[in-house]
Amino acid sequence: MEIFGFDLTEILSAVLPVIGKMILLVVAYLIIVPIGKKVIEKTLQNAAKGQKSSPGRMKTLEKLLTNVFSYVMMFVLIVMLFSALGVDIGPLLAGAGVVGLAIAFGAQGLVSDIVTGFFVILERQIEIDDYVTTAGYDGVVEEIGLRTTKIRSFDGTLNFVPNRYIEGVANHSRGNMRALVDIGISHYDNLDEALAILKKICGEFENDERFKEGPDAIGVQAIDTSQIVLRVVGQTENGLQWECERDIRKRIKEAFNEKNVDMPLTQHVVLQKATE
Amino acid sequence: MEIFGFDLTEILSAVLPVIGKMILLVVAYLIIVPIGKKVIEKTLQNAAKGQKSSPGRMKTLEKLLTNVFSYVMMFVLIVMLFSALGVDIGPLLAGAGVVGLAIAFGAQGLVSDIVTGFFVILERQIEIDDYVTTAGYDGVVEEIGLRTTKIRSFDGTLNFVPNRYIEGVANHSRGNMRALVDIGISHYDNLDEALAILKKICGEFENDERFKEGPDAIGVQAIDTSQIVLRVVGQTENGLQWECERDIRKRIKEAFNEKNVDMPLTQHVVLQKATE
Amino acid sequence: MEIFGFDLTEILSAVLPVIGKMILLVVAYLIIVPIGKKVIEKTLQNAAKGQKSSPGRMKTLEKLLTNVFSYVMMFVLIVMLFSALGVDIGPLLAGAGVVGLAIAFGAQGLVSDIVTGFFVILERQIEIDDYVTTAGYDGVVEEIGLRTTKIRSFDGTLNFVPNRYIEGVANHSRGNMRALVDIGISHYDNLDEALAILKKICGEFENDERFKEGPDAIGVQAIDTSQIVLRVVGQTENGLQWECERDIRKRIKEAFNEKNVDMPLTQHVVLQKATE
Amino acid sequence: MEIFGFDLTEILSAVLPVIGKMILLVVAYLIIVPIGKKVIEKTLQNAAKGQKSSPGRMKTLEKLLTNVFSYVMMFVLIVMLFSALGVDIGPLLAGAGVVGLAIAFGAQGLVSDIVTGFFVILERQIEIDDYVTTAGYDGVVEEIGLRTTKIRSFDGTLNFVPNRYIEGVANHSRGNMRALVDIGISHYDNLDEALAILKKICGEFENDERFKEGPDAIGVQAIDTSQIVLRVVGQTENGLQWECERDIRKRIKEAFNEKNVDMPLTQHVVLQKATE
Amino acid sequence: MEIFGFDLTEILSAVLPVIGKMILLVVAYLIIVPIGKKVIEKTLQNAAKGQKSSPGRMKTLEKLLTNVFSYVMMFVLIVMLFSALGVDIGPLLAGAGVVGLAIAFGAQGLVSDIVTGFFVILERQIEIDDYVTTAGYDGVVEEIGLRTTKIRSFDGTLNFVPNRYIEGVANHSRGNMRALVDIGISHYDNLDEALAILKKICGEFENDERFKEGPDAIGVQAIDTSQIVLRVVGQTENGLQWECERDIRKRIKEAFNEKNVDMPLTQHVVLQKATE
Amino acid sequence: MEIFGFDLTEILSAVLPVIGKMILLVVAYLIIVPIGKKVIEKTLQNAAKGQKSSPGRMKTLEKLLTNVFSYVMMFVLIVMLFSALGVDIGPLLAGAGVVGLAIAFGAQGLVSDIVTGFFVILERQIEIDDYVTTAGYDGVVEEIGLRTTKIRSFDGTLNFVPNRYIEGVANHSRGNMRALVDIGISHYDNLDEALAILKKICGEFENDERFKEGPDAIGVQAIDTSQIVLRVVGQTENGLQWECERDIRKRIKEAFNEKNVDMPLTQHVVLQKATE
Amino acid sequence: MEIFGFDLTEILSAVLPVIGKMILLVVAYLIIVPIGKKVIEKTLQNAAKGQKSSPGRMKTLEKLLTNVFSYVMMFVLIVMLFSALGVDIGPLLAGAGVVGLAIAFGAQGLVSDIVTGFFVILERQIEIDDYVTTAGYDGVVEEIGLRTTKIRSFDGTLNFVPNRYIEGVANHSRGNMRALVDIGISHYDNLDEALAILKKICGEFENDERFKEGPDAIGVQAIDTSQIVLRVVGQTENGLQWECERDIRKRIKEAFNEKNVDMPLTQHVVLQKATE
Repeated sequence: MEIFGFDLTEILSAVLPVIGKMILLVVAYLIIVPIGKKVIEKTLQNAAKGQKSSPGRMKTLEKLLTNVFSYVMMFVLIVMLFSALGVDIGPLLAGAGVVGLAIAFGAQGLVSDIVTGFFVILERQIEIDDYVTTAGYDGVVEEIGLRTTKIRSFDGTLNFVPNRYIEGVANHSRGNMRALVDIGISHYDNLDEALAILKKICGEFENDERFKEGPDAIGVQAIDTSQIVLRVVGQTENGLQWECERDIRKRIKEAFNEKNVDMPLTQHVVLQKATE
Repeated sequence: MEIFGFDLTEILSAVLPVIGKMILLVVAYLIIVPIGKKVIEKTLQNAAKGQKSSPGRMKTLEKLLTNVFSYVMMFVLIVMLFSALGVDIGPLLAGAGVVGLAIAFGAQGLVSDIVTGFFVILERQIEIDDYVTTAGYDGVVEEIGLRTTKIRSFDGTLNFVPNRYIEGVANHSRGNMRALVDIGISHYDNLDEALAILKKICGEFENDERFKEGPDAIGVQAIDTSQIVLRVVGQTENGLQWECERDIRKRIKEAFNEKNVDMPLTQHVVLQKATE
Repeated sequence: MEIFGFDLTEILSAVLPVIGKMILLVVAYLIIVPIGKKVIEKTLQNAAKGQKSSPGRMKTLEKLLTNVFSYVMMFVLIVMLFSALGVDIGPLLAGAGVVGLAIAFGAQGLVSDIVTGFFVILERQIEIDDYVTTAGYDGVVEEIGLRTTKIRSFDGTLNFVPNRYIEGVANHSRGNMRALVDIGISHYDNLDEALAILKKICGEFENDERFKEGPDAIGVQAIDTSQIVLRVVGQTENGLQWECERDIRKRIKEAFNEKNVDMPLTQHVVLQKATE
Repeated sequence: MEIFGFDLTEILSAVLPVIGKMILLVVAYLIIVPIGKKVIEKTLQNAAKGQKSSPGRMKTLEKLLTNVFSYVMMFVLIVMLFSALGVDIGPLLAGAGVVGLAIAFGAQGLVSDIVTGFFVILERQIEIDDYVTTAGYDGVVEEIGLRTTKIRSFDGTLNFVPNRYIEGVANHSRGNMRALVDIGISHYDNLDEALAILKKICGEFENDERFKEGPDAIGVQAIDTSQIVLRVVGQTENGLQWECERDIRKRIKEAFNEKNVDMPLTQHVVLQKATE
Repeated sequence: MEIFGFDLTEILSAVLPVIGKMILLVVAYLIIVPIGKKVIEKTLQNAAKGQKSSPGRMKTLEKLLTNVFSYVMMFVLIVMLFSALGVDIGPLLAGAGVVGLAIAFGAQGLVSDIVTGFFVILERQIEIDDYVTTAGYDGVVEEIGLRTTKIRSFDGTLNFVPNRYIEGVANHSRGNMRALVDIGISHYDNLDEALAILKKICGEFENDERFKEGPDAIGVQAIDTSQIVLRVVGQTENGLQWECERDIRKRIKEAFNEKNVDMPLTQHVVLQKATE
Repeated sequence: MEIFGFDLTEILSAVLPVIGKMILLVVAYLIIVPIGKKVIEKTLQNAAKGQKSSPGRMKTLEKLLTNVFSYVMMFVLIVMLFSALGVDIGPLLAGAGVVGLAIAFGAQGLVSDIVTGFFVILERQIEIDDYVTTAGYDGVVEEIGLRTTKIRSFDGTLNFVPNRYIEGVANHSRGNMRALVDIGISHYDNLDEALAILKKICGEFENDERFKEGPDAIGVQAIDTSQIVLRVVGQTENGLQWECERDIRKRIKEAFNEKNVDMPLTQHVVLQKATE
Repeated sequence: MEIFGFDLTEILSAVLPVIGKMILLVVAYLIIVPIGKKVIEKTLQNAAKGQKSSPGRMKTLEKLLTNVFSYVMMFVLIVMLFSALGVDIGPLLAGAGVVGLAIAFGAQGLVSDIVTGFFVILERQIEIDDYVTTAGYDGVVEEIGLRTTKIRSFDGTLNFVPNRYIEGVANHSRGNMRALVDIGISHYDNLDEALAILKKICGEFENDERFKEGPDAIGVQAIDTSQIVLRVVGQTENGLQWECERDIRKRIKEAFNEKNVDMPLTQHVVLQKATE
């Protein structure tokens, strides 16, 4: 058939596969997008299973990921439709590439922040009110965000730490802590007597509830030119280690004063010479 | 039909789809650009919602982003029109790539500056007049720009910090600050008496409005060869911690002088020997 | 044959190879995927052969790898089917590239963690309850995960170390450890007598079961302005080195006190001058 | 028509579009290049608006950028003309790529230098005769170039700093500077009297024009084993801080000498022991 | 010829070149693979020629490389056969690229380990039982693996060092070692006499078999406020340097005691002043 | 026309455009290469205009650049001729890419060296016989090469510094240098008298030709527990600063001895206590 | 002509250009390869002209480079022949790319080693038996290889330094070395007399052949609280600087003892106070 001098069959045979392809693409799109969203959702729920605390944060993350996924798929659909219509899409891709690269440049750190933050939360490396040392900051955690973690130092400073700088976490709020007191005595003191005093003091603290593993006087830690260093070690409840150390220190000092155990004052031998 | 020996139908059937494609492209352009601009605008407004302070800066950012977006889309449109006309656009793309790469080389740091600056402002990590430590500089914030933050050190120096070097922020102007005074006494002083004096002084300061958490004498912090170190700790209003520390220090010194508590002078035992 | 004006032969000759290709692709898919899975499984089992401890972890790894492999192959199959249907798949590949790049950005550290963790486990560099120093952390290993290793410091802190930061491992729980005691005597003490005392003490410890290689007094380690340093060295059972050192130190101190060997007090020559 | 056995129509229909494309390209070139140059010019003028000082440098930059732009566009034009003639330009592009890569290798640092230098000038971070600390160098700025900044140290050394190493600038010539004098007194001095003397001296300096904020004696800064440290702080005109500090120091010393306030000589307690 | 309406000649002329290509590919594969394996084998054997010790390790390396080569070639063959059949292999290549990239991400460190390990073994930089310092670890080599080297520290710690961190090796087990003793005398001792004593002691050690180059008293190494430092230097058999140093030190001390050469005690001039 | 059964017209119409393209390419080559060389030459001459010293080095650089340019253009020509003949040049390009990459790997540092060296010479940052500090080396420049700079340290060592490590240059041979002498006096000396002596000495040196800015006694630089530090500062001719400092120091010492100004000996207060 | 139903002319016209291309390729290969080898040879010979020592090493390098070149060209030839036969060589190139990438991963460090080594040898920065400091190692060069340099430390350790870590070389074996002796005298010694003694000693050494520039007493280098430091400086033959310093030191000490010039003993002023 010819209409206005055009061969309809030819036109049809040119147009039909194009329309076929376009329908195919839309159908594929309608199938793939919801499946992709479900996969993201499920994966996150699995990951979050062991974790009790932050459902709100998971929601945020899920929404973020499904949004990004939808935008990318819609862009792909549009471009493929154009392509099916026979429009050369090279420049469009190039333009998208430039914009995408610009975003990537900017977002690189952001993505690292989110991924690290995700694992810090997931593995419960840090929880709010933990006392931690990480990324050169030291203090109590006030907030763990997807991008930034806030740590309150003991001097009152509030530190903002982008998550990507959290390379390792030293968490001081997990389990009992050690109380350690090193005390020096002079070379002229009676070593056995001093050790006996320390053992007696350790005994006094054994029933202290704060101690999980009674403090022990474990012996001569070091000998240097001016002192013999004795060590007392124990396990205390988390957070009470400094208080316990201060108490032990005070008790030892009092006992040593009582029993005339000398502090290790620096000692010199002086050889007098007449001036030339 | 033939005109001057050319087959008009043939020409038309060659020219028509080209014109069709070009119209299609212009229409797509006219639809996509305003939508894209709206999306940028909305995204920024959402991001800025929680933030009270800098609407001016947001405007700048918005204008910057929509300009970049417009230029990129216009470039894409032009190239696609050329392409529809059957001109090989490979070299143009290559040329644009070289220019773009050159810009990217130069702008890389700039983009990092802007992105980091954006989050510093958005999360309110820094506000003007905060006393902060970041990127090795320490002082009061005078200006937070998209590219550079100005920090005035206490010695009067004005520091220009490109935002990308702000890896973590220690903000000393958020909440109460700790006042901490360590004071040494000699081994021959009466430990209990000294602690009692400290406690009395702490009591005097308890009603001081500057203190949010009354200063406490928390005990024996350390024992070394020449002194017993006692510690006083309190929480003060932000910015008054140094003043409070100075006042406590002066008060303790006066009380110790009064009660004859000795300063921890270095003590030596000297053993005289005759010269050989 | 012509049906509705279309040449059936032509259609058939156009459609048949397409269908042929699609069948070929599905068949290839059905053959390659199970083989690939088997290869992954075998490789892991071979790798894990020498290793006794963590079958559970190997399972996790295997599941992870086969899942990733399946997803990639399925994606390839779908894209190739589309391609066989004559749909231009460039944009789809580009879209997948963007998503993949985003994942890669995020997962880069994760992959490093898993690979390093894999070798740490495989080569048994670290086992649970080993005392190790790695990545700036020092303590007893509590858990070795695919992504993170937990190390408990002696002060009670729990450290989370992403595996990729484990650049070298110093494992203190493999074999006997050295006990080393350096002891100073004064310049006026009798060197030979002091060495004799040390040798006698070493003899006393020779039958101590804790020592694998009896402690030896190996001689004059250093001479400086205030002391002559003598060294005692031995090999002890793993973990008992500090206890042994403390015992040797105590014993030497007692013996020196008994035999009047002097501690190396700092000695000065003083030349008195009258004030001008 | 046939000429020498060639079909003229055929030739024409082959040659005409080629010529058409070439004309199109030249026209596009003639339109785009001046517009591009204008855009560069305008952008730079906008950027430079707030800035008073260096029009000469802006000229240099403008010329540099328009030259680069012209060369790139001319290269693109030539290659596209070739391409329109049906010459395969792949190798040419590859060759250009190699040369361009070589230039990029070399120019990378140069581009960084220029971009950083541009912002340093634009934001007026540094101006000639400012006293700055940057990139590990410290001194007075002698020249700010597009590639290198010259800083004259106080010892006379002339430092050449490539701009890209200017990561942050501490500018000591912007606003008043702090004069700070810490002075120690001995534990046996009268604290209140010493503070009174300092306050009196501060009063003397209050009318000194060099001081913008009168020097204040703010109290007890530190207490250590040998001294009590008192602090005097003031704001002076820029550049006069050292002179002022020296004057305050001299005045305090004189006043203390007059009033018999002791310098904090190190104090020891010595316990004599008979030689064994 | 026509069969079922298909033109056999046409089919044949379409199918024949395909089959021809496929046969060509298989033949090329069968020729290239064994040659490639031989090349790998030969190269390794050449490289290993100068090396005596680790044939087992070479075998492992050879097997690894030929396996990798076989897998890659087989993959190439399969893909080329597909391609000859007219299947678009773009997606397959893309998929393989993704998997390959993932492996590369993981294996990058591994490859570095193997290459460095290969050269460490080949150049015999390290051999088992050598005492080396490398990558911050110090001790005796227990095992040199393709991926990891095990170094036993003197304190008993076993260090696992991934080969890629071996940036330079200080091997202390290659040739004679220097024994060096610095000994201080006081300013009041007779310099010539002291040097004479040292020379005499050096003479005593000259016939000691442990010394490869007799110890020499080379003179006055330094003069400082409290001592004149004299130096004795010699070359000893590898591993005996510390023992020799200890023996020389003991001998010098004894000789100095005998001849009344003073140790360099710190000397002070003290100017007594009456208290103000 | 048909010759041997081939249609000559057909052949001609196939061969002619090929030959046309090849002629075009050769002509373009003959035009572009000399222009390119001229551009390189001119650019270098412009760059070198301000610079007096090293025409020889410029020649070397020019020759290097034009050689590289010629080789690249010849390679491009050959490949384009091949391409015009219808040979698939993909593999050749790939091969060239591999070789080029290998060269790039090796030459990367070399290119950096040359570019940095070019600017160091161009901006005259360093000239032969200058005394400079750069890249951690310190000494007098002996040679500035395109790749390496030789610096002779004052101890005689000859340092080879690859130019790329020259990140900033501290040139100590540009302009007058500061002579600075800090001299301490004791707390019991008369401050005004000491300052008067210093001023008198400064007056003596004022007519010394070596001084460009007469030495001045600028006052009390610091007060610490054992001394009052006074400062004398002046500007001297380049290279004479140390000599001048030594002369001033000697003169001050002599004047102080004459006038009985005390050196700041460390002063202690000693409190004698009886032994317990 | 038709044979077995195939049109011979058609076949011929299809086969002939293929064969033509293949012949062309082989001819081009046979021309290019020897030329390329000659170019490599010549370049190396030119580079090596100024250099006397290591022809063997140059041979090795030449062989290495020509081998690599041959392999690459042969690979290119094979692939282009395949391509001329109409086989799709995409996968082969991809496979080669993977293998090449793997080699590149491994060889990257190796190439850097060879290039750096090449320049170290070419510029004669290091020669065997030179005493050098480089890459953190210090000692006498024993061997300079293409990949590794061996440096023997003075303590006997043999250091293996991969050439790429040689970032700068401090060569202590090029030209005369400085002998420098700093000697302190006390504040009570006669400065002029001491300088006179030093000058006399310098005179004694002037005729010493080891000195290239007679030692000079250049004056008062520093004044501190306990000493006046005088400096003697001279130029000696390379390698004899330490010996000369020791001789000068011994001579000065003897002369000072003779003339009763005091060593700068630390001096204190002590103020006795009665105990409270």
